Amino acid sequence: VSVGIGAGLAGDLGRIVGADHATDVVPSEYLVDATYSRGVRGQADVLVRPGSADEVAEVVAWCYERDVPVVTRGGGTGYAAGALGTGGVLLSMERLDRVRSIEPEWWRMVAEAGVTTGRVRHVAREHGLYFPVNPGALEQSHIGGNAATNAGGPHSFRYGVMRQWVQGLEVVLAPGELVQLGGHTRKDVAGYDLVRLLVGSEGTLGVITAVWLRLIPAPEARYPILAVQRDLEAGCAAIERVYASGAQPAALEYLDGETLRYAGATMPMPLPDHPGFAVLVEADGLQAEAAAARELIVDVLSEDAVAVHAPTDTASAEAVWRWREGVALAITAQRGGKLSEDIAVPVDRLQEAIAESIAIGTRHGLPSCSFGHAGDGNVHTAFLVDLADTAEVGQAEAACHDLFDLARRLGGTVSGEHGVGRLKGGQLRHQWAPRAVELHGAIRATFDPKGLLNPGAKLA
Amino acid sequence: VSVGIGAGLAGDLGRIVGADHATDVVPSEYLVDATYSRGVRGQADVLVRPGSADEVAEVVAWCYERDVPVVTRGGGTGYAAGALGTGGVLLSMERLDRVRSIEPEWWRMVAEAGVTTGRVRHVAREHGLYFPVNPGALEQSHIGGNAATNAGGPHSFRYGVMRQWVQGLEVVLAPGELVQLGGHTRKDVAGYDLVRLLVGSEGTLGVITAVWLRLIPAPEARYPILAVQRDLEAGCAAIERVYASGAQPAALEYLDGETLRYAGATMPMPLPDHPGFAVLVEADGLQAEAAAARELIVDVLSEDAVAVHAPTDTASAEAVWRWREGVALAITAQRGGKLSEDIAVPVDRLQEAIAESIAIGTRHGLPSCSFGHAGDGNVHTAFLVDLADTAEVGQAEAACHDLFDLARRLGGTVSGEHGVGRLKGGQLRHQWAPRAVELHGAIRATFDPKGLLNPGAKLA
Repeated sequence: VSVGIGAGLAGDLGRIVGADHATDVVPSEYLVDATYSRGVRGQADVLVRPGSADEVAEVVAWCYERDVPVVTRGGGTGYAAGALGTGGVLLSMERLDRVRSIEPEWWRMVAEAGVTTGRVRHVAREHGLYFPVNPGALEQSHIGGNAATNAGGPHSFRYGVMRQWVQGLEVVLAPGELVQLGGHTRKDVAGYDLVRLLVGSEGTLGVITAVWLRLIPAPEARYPILAVQRDLEAGCAAIERVYASGAQPAALEYLDGETLRYAGATMPMPLPDHPGFAVLVEADGLQAEAAAARELIVDVLSEDAVAVHAPTDTASAEAVWRWREGVALAITAQRGGKLSEDIAVPVDRLQEAIAESIAIGTRHGLPSCSFGHAGDGNVHTAFLVDLADTAEVGQAEAACHDLFDLARRLGGTVSGEHGVGRLKGGQLRHQWAPRAVELHGAIRATFDPKGLLNPGAKLA
Repeated sequence: VSVGIGAGLAGDLGRIVGADHATDVVPSEYLVDATYSRGVRGQADVLVRPGSADEVAEVVAWCYERDVPVVTRGGGTGYAAGALGTGGVLLSMERLDRVRSIEPEWWRMVAEAGVTTGRVRHVAREHGLYFPVNPGALEQSHIGGNAATNAGGPHSFRYGVMRQWVQGLEVVLAPGELVQLGGHTRKDVAGYDLVRLLVGSEGTLGVITAVWLRLIPAPEARYPILAVQRDLEAGCAAIERVYASGAQPAALEYLDGETLRYAGATMPMPLPDHPGFAVLVEADGLQAEAAAARELIVDVLSEDAVAVHAPTDTASAEAVWRWREGVALAITAQRGGKLSEDIAVPVDRLQEAIAESIAIGTRHGLPSCSFGHAGDGNVHTAFLVDLADTAEVGQAEAACHDLFDLARRLGGTVSGEHGVGRLKGGQLRHQWAPRAVELHGAIRATFDPKGLLNPGAKLA
């Protein structure tokens, strides 16, 4: 889209959303996401901030009529550049920020796409309920973006990913129709599961404007158990013992030795000199359940740990998770930049995946470390770079591609939770059978015949 | 398909699956399902019983080349005539009955489509694990059919429906390719969610030959709590109190007064003279959790119940569920036949849905009763008929259509768990927006361009 087009678009779209909410001077903070730490930037001709689902429909219809691409942006916390387009309309959902309803007596909520994940969790908690999906960056991340990417996080081990909590969607489908799929009804097999097809479609099949969410009673107690092992092998054996314990932990995380070298200083427990691996588990539920599960897990972790930290008071428990949430930042801080991926493998291949992903970094001459959601086999390996050193960034890009090959070799996937975005386009065809790849494209063309919804993202 | 075609098909297909397993003399038991109690029968030119997934692919390819319809049949326990075709090939999955793998240490199993649901649960239990989906008829129902219909049952209240437990599928896609989607990897957002699109597609998008299942540690304890209330209103208030109790019961069922009149005699508890409603709850989990949840639930049910039965010994607990599973038969036994549906509504509309569904029966001059999965708002209302009385059967058909209208009026769906099959074709277009209905058809045409996979089923 050439220079000057932005002004024309902004004028026309301003008539739909209000002149204050359509501009061709797109602030730079709208053109980045969590991939800023690897130097990725997007482009847009005009930023549009609709104030209602009807306005979203009007904007999409307007664009669809004129062949203008539409990239939808949530909180901008993505790790795959999924909302970083190369032109056309950037549709920010920030003004669709109403919790439309909360019905605590029936464990449910309807929230507009731009409500932050933190607010969803907070509103639920205020009513004695729990929304278990926590992909991180809670105060920025939008619930609509969580649905569009099928977000996960630590607690998906017990509670599953977004798909499990989204019972209905309000969505704008091409060429610009506002449609409700599903809703408050908890079971529905009257048609194909379009709700779950939209969940995880990364803005390529429609624009999500609101979500009908399931909630559950808040756990009475949540106990983190943090154990340090001497090395990767001992750590993975501990993970297997947690699986076999009979408990169903809410979360089952790992951090490798290198990660502990960066983040160990702030770790809320006394550490041995050379911690080789750590496992973080959470036991939750009714008081009696959480306590029983905690006991089982402490037992199996203590068998072969260097140190175990299992606080029962709220402040210490919260400190553990605060520390865990700061790990990604501590890693980035090492060299100013990092390229990281989120491959997932069958959990029995976890040890191999971690070891080989670190070996990939070594092969490319890059410091690297690995942490992630052990129970789900979801490996976040990061290659640390100086962003100013383009050769090094190139090495890291190559290392990421090796990670994708590794995931496939171990029977896994190139993305467990971050999505394909613009960084992993073209990977799916190496992972899926040709007929399935063909159907992937055909479904997209069915929903978006003009190819205007988030073009360039989620390519097979 | 005209007379004589069956013999030709059987000969050709016998060369793929073995002559013993392809026949144009289709035994009548292959042409019925649970809708026999409403007089429905299917037709087929040839019955084919492939012995492997590769043979399924060959059969589908053979049919696809020659424009022969393929109807896939699991255990024949469906309530929507989903596997009762009108001709062509009837593909029975009974010989694909291998548990390909069970890995208890990683909570997972791979089972071929024809493994019974009972066997899946049994194999899991032998290894200390739990597969929570129990749609009933456990010894007949196939796991492949459960996936194809996105089956539910009582324990879906806490544990969710099939979609939540199917992590991967082996499936034959038109024009006859054997493809694996998903697998052992627990999180995967690399492509659109084709697994969940196939789950619940009722054999119209592909033929499922094997499923990758998630399992969880078996609950240490399971406590049923059966409470009798004086009437519908008191019963629904009790259901709301269970929701508000802070516990997360595994199951939350209801039975109305008329159901109790038929099934009350065998109810494993002393009954008052005119029981008006009953609520059946199950508390489960680790011993400590189940006991704590049981106590909470007994408390809130006791507030306003006529009688509460909450056994803690295994034999009495099993007796409660055995009784519950016999309820549908006790109802059918009243008049020899019944037409029943499984609409689902938002749970706050449950009382209205039950009351109005019974009023529909009354309006059509039919004895009727209602029971189902209260927590999920899934209402099984049955109209009792003498199958020999065609006028009465006609009245019951009309009553079922009134149920569909009722479901939509209450913001619900025409099917919570049984599926569309051949009995609810055409209902979806009254329930979904036109653009969504259009996409439903387009998706089907994408997967099955010739319209040969279970034609006549799951029509919008």
